[in-house]
Amino acid sequence: MGGEGQSETREAIMEATYRALCDHGYASLTMQNIADEFGKSKGLLHYHFDSKEELLVAFIDYLLAGFEDDIASIEGPPDERLAAFIERFVVANGDERRALHLALLELRAQAPFNDRFRDQLARSDAIVRAAVADMVDEGITTGVFRADTDPDALARVVLAAMDGARMRGLTIGDDTYPAAVRDALITYVLDDLLVGAAE
Amino acid sequence: MGGEGQSETREAIMEATYRALCDHGYASLTMQNIADEFGKSKGLLHYHFDSKEELLVAFIDYLLAGFEDDIASIEGPPDERLAAFIERFVVANGDERRALHLALLELRAQAPFNDRFRDQLARSDAIVRAAVADMVDEGITTGVFRADTDPDALARVVLAAMDGARMRGLTIGDDTYPAAVRDALITYVLDDLLVGAAE
Repeated sequence: MGGEGQSETREAIMEATYRALCDHGYASLTMQNIADEFGKSKGLLHYHFDSKEELLVAFIDYLLAGFEDDIASIEGPPDERLAAFIERFVVANGDERRALHLALLELRAQAPFNDRFRDQLARSDAIVRAAVADMVDEGITTGVFRADTDPDALARVVLAAMDGARMRGLTIGDDTYPAAVRDALITYVLDDLLVGAAE
Repeated sequence: MGGEGQSETREAIMEATYRALCDHGYASLTMQNIADEFGKSKGLLHYHFDSKEELLVAFIDYLLAGFEDDIASIEGPPDERLAAFIERFVVANGDERRALHLALLELRAQAPFNDRFRDQLARSDAIVRAAVADMVDEGITTGVFRADTDPDALARVVLAAMDGARMRGLTIGDDTYPAAVRDALITYVLDDLLVGAAE
């Protein structure tokens, strides 16, 4: 029971952090902002997390775990799953995830200077990359993708392209970028890998 | 003559900014750091640039112009030029450009909140993208690339993939990322576009 209450409190803190990051951005975020969204005292926040860094490390973990679950929940044949995965990166103007992705971009820019942020991102990159590589692998086994496809190499190029497209879209204020790169990736990468497309 | 001295001073300030950014990173950079690298007073710096933001906008311009000149200077057949362009994004550990790219990543993360940074990056994206699209276009005209290739779509996916690869490499501390994505991009995108590769 105590454990249940504890985990509900942590969940509530994570949701409050999400809203505070969306409203204030990463650079000016304070524990007070999070406490305000949490609707409880800053003291209670500090009871659960010693520092803002501690809380943000837990938040990255929470967010990445959500993204990883999201990928695991995609169903269908491997080529459709891969296309659905790519779709998750497409953030349009007005999208409620946009503010979060802006805050995440700032947080990622700090990762080279923060070992704990970097380790979290590295761990997640490995998990997500393996999930994409598994889709490709399954597609080879079931005869959807060409047998000479390297699952990890393909996973890296897909991840990098969609990540870069989202970053460019956000940083230059061009919301057409992610969708344009998605289409190009499907035309110039995925379609060419389909068995029977070309040999 | 006066104009010449003026432009030499600006060039010296830009080089000092480059070194100061590499040494201190973006977040903690001060006008004093730049003045120290410049070897002149902060007052002289302020004579040329009203504020740090003013100076950084000029620096982004300087850096992007250098990158654009760099691309324009690549020679050879279009497919080789495209491969050489991709190579510019590969930053390895120990690379002297690494510190600069870390600082640039922080600066880009500020672009969504800074109209002038964003406009500079958008302008540069358009120029670089057009240069890559021109290589593809020339490749189609000279019969190197397949005629059904969309130059702008291809330029976007190449730029996004290499940008994302560099960002992932820097933020998760995996210096093999850019080279791995370069290889995958050549195998799964560029090679498939060559006339005779597949139809």
